[in-house]
Amino acid sequence: MGDERFERGWSKFRELNEPYAEQMRETMERDEPELFRFIVEFVFGEVLSRPVLDLKTRELVTVAVLTALGNARQQLRLHIHAALNVGWSREEVHEIIMQQAVYAGFPAALNGATLAREVFAHRDKQNLS
Amino acid sequence: MGDERFERGWSKFRELNEPYAEQMRETMERDEPELFRFIVEFVFGEVLSRPVLDLKTRELVTVAVLTALGNARQQLRLHIHAALNVGWSREEVHEIIMQQAVYAGFPAALNGATLAREVFAHRDKQNLS
Amino acid sequence: MGDERFERGWSKFRELNEPYAEQMRETMERDEPELFRFIVEFVFGEVLSRPVLDLKTRELVTVAVLTALGNARQQLRLHIHAALNVGWSREEVHEIIMQQAVYAGFPAALNGATLAREVFAHRDKQNLS
Amino acid sequence: MGDERFERGWSKFRELNEPYAEQMRETMERDEPELFRFIVEFVFGEVLSRPVLDLKTRELVTVAVLTALGNARQQLRLHIHAALNVGWSREEVHEIIMQQAVYAGFPAALNGATLAREVFAHRDKQNLS
Amino acid sequence: MGDERFERGWSKFRELNEPYAEQMRETMERDEPELFRFIVEFVFGEVLSRPVLDLKTRELVTVAVLTALGNARQQLRLHIHAALNVGWSREEVHEIIMQQAVYAGFPAALNGATLAREVFAHRDKQNLS
Amino acid sequence: MGDERFERGWSKFRELNEPYAEQMRETMERDEPELFRFIVEFVFGEVLSRPVLDLKTRELVTVAVLTALGNARQQLRLHIHAALNVGWSREEVHEIIMQQAVYAGFPAALNGATLAREVFAHRDKQNLS
Repeated sequence: MGDERFERGWSKFRELNEPYAEQMRETMERDEPELFRFIVEFVFGEVLSRPVLDLKTRELVTVAVLTALGNARQQLRLHIHAALNVGWSREEVHEIIMQQAVYAGFPAALNGATLAREVFAHRDKQNLS
Repeated sequence: MGDERFERGWSKFRELNEPYAEQMRETMERDEPELFRFIVEFVFGEVLSRPVLDLKTRELVTVAVLTALGNARQQLRLHIHAALNVGWSREEVHEIIMQQAVYAGFPAALNGATLAREVFAHRDKQNLS
Repeated sequence: MGDERFERGWSKFRELNEPYAEQMRETMERDEPELFRFIVEFVFGEVLSRPVLDLKTRELVTVAVLTALGNARQQLRLHIHAALNVGWSREEVHEIIMQQAVYAGFPAALNGATLAREVFAHRDKQNLS
Repeated sequence: MGDERFERGWSKFRELNEPYAEQMRETMERDEPELFRFIVEFVFGEVLSRPVLDLKTRELVTVAVLTALGNARQQLRLHIHAALNVGWSREEVHEIIMQQAVYAGFPAALNGATLAREVFAHRDKQNLS
Repeated sequence: MGDERFERGWSKFRELNEPYAEQMRETMERDEPELFRFIVEFVFGEVLSRPVLDLKTRELVTVAVLTALGNARQQLRLHIHAALNVGWSREEVHEIIMQQAVYAGFPAALNGATLAREVFAHRDKQNLS
Repeated sequence: MGDERFERGWSKFRELNEPYAEQMRETMERDEPELFRFIVEFVFGEVLSRPVLDLKTRELVTVAVLTALGNARQQLRLHIHAALNVGWSREEVHEIIMQQAVYAGFPAALNGATLAREVFAHRDKQNLS
């Protein structure tokens, strides 16, 4: 059953993090094996695999939440990348980041927008949309 | 032009906050006239009226962000109400709140879920969906 | 395997929350069945059941963290109760709350101390140590 | 020397918290004697007694900071009261709270403004300016 | 009217950010044109242009708030610079940062102080006070 | 008495920060003399020198709290180092950081774990346990 959860979670993880999923798995299994297992089995295999809301909706929300919390730059970068992977446009991702000026203040929104530009530039180099 | 922004914003404000919009306007124009004007003109008339993302998407995101920040119970209540008004189901609103356990911790998610149940019970009494 | 995790987690949950554990389970299974399952299976059955650190140490830490974050009064109350249940004295719990003035500011420490006094008074009435 | 710090701090504490200073001291010496001593000796006797900035300036800043942090309602109430005691007008206090919409978001500013109205109403009853 | 707000806001923006204002405008109009317009028109042209409190008072408060929130290093740097531009001394700016140890904890105050030293060193090189 | 507090605090400070204590003192007395005195006299000489809880327990708690708050990387690094100095194993420090996924979210726990690996690598080079 742990295996089943892992497989379900890993399939979601891969979808969000392509083309970097395998490389992330290698690094995390070496550096943080327990956190990696929790993330794949619980976060991806249980929470994000629930029905009711699709993965695309969940990802836009996560970009907004990490922008507002403002304490996790590296995770925000990954989720901006993931949101683009599951079908949001760059304009939509930028728009939801900008909206956080209202709820979390302009500094949080500006910092989120800066990270988004970095991710967009990186994807340009990789020929990703 | 201030008037134009106000009218555009007020129309959004009313859509989200029915059937309480007029009563909220009366209270806020009496107690916090400047903040009310900023909220209608800037928040609703400029930010939330931008194209790119529709109001429905923006509201689900706001419920999630206020759950994660955890410092604004009254506003979270209003936005849960607003999210239902613009077409999300109770299950969808509850789901996005629950997801915040991953990004902001279980206490934030539990507190958001408690507020959601309060809003749902209130709407039952008002025969709102 | 879900059952095994649930049983392991439920045994931890009960230990921390006596004499209110059954009543909490009833309420949560009715109101928040998914969050309850995540909390028992993942939080208690996986994270808090890990070896390396015992439950007593983990509980003191949780009281400190919730005091510092300052956004979860109800959960802080439960964890103050739990910390006393697993063997910390009232003086020790109060001491770790007071220490958070240094890392999260005096307002956070004062609010934590107020909740601790409320829990202590409640336990006096129940003849709990 | 502890006594000297205490006396210097207590004199500042009294200035800010009149006419409630003695009553607050009684309550805090009974409930939180160590935190009270830290607050009088360190916060008031060392930090707030430093030269460079006067107490009036420091108090407006504290109202703004507690509004922005959003996790300490009771302390914010006390500091709104204190800011008025040291010579700020109600308009000025309200203005600095409103400004935090920019840096911490509209929910934080709205919650601060609500507390300010409560303090103003309380002072009306006590015939305080 | 949008133009009027923009002109009023831009004049405040320039006052705070000299001698970097034009360069910041160029960068922001290229990278974040909507956020830049919101910041100039709403933040500077509406909120910070309100009477009741002068710009000098508002800037010291912003330095304190960003120090306490602790999630916006780059904006804190700009506001330390701005506070010195509108007439606060380096000692006063440092003092208000240090005071935040009381309300937001020592780590926040230490990080703010580190940024202040960086800004002071930069201004030394530019022969700014 | 200030001297007595300083000596008591300095002895704690040295115990936690070896072999870097003298070097840190030199830097801080030059750059932040007032904050340094507050930290040694108040934080180490008064709060952390209190009985009731030993320094070892207090340090594990501080690692957890700074992980959860997520806004003080440099201080978290120092306290991970300090926790190892007073007798916690690397596994125990890592475990308490991981636990914060539950209370403050996975991003906070992941960032704490990354810093821990950096501290462990640095200590390997210094032949520290």
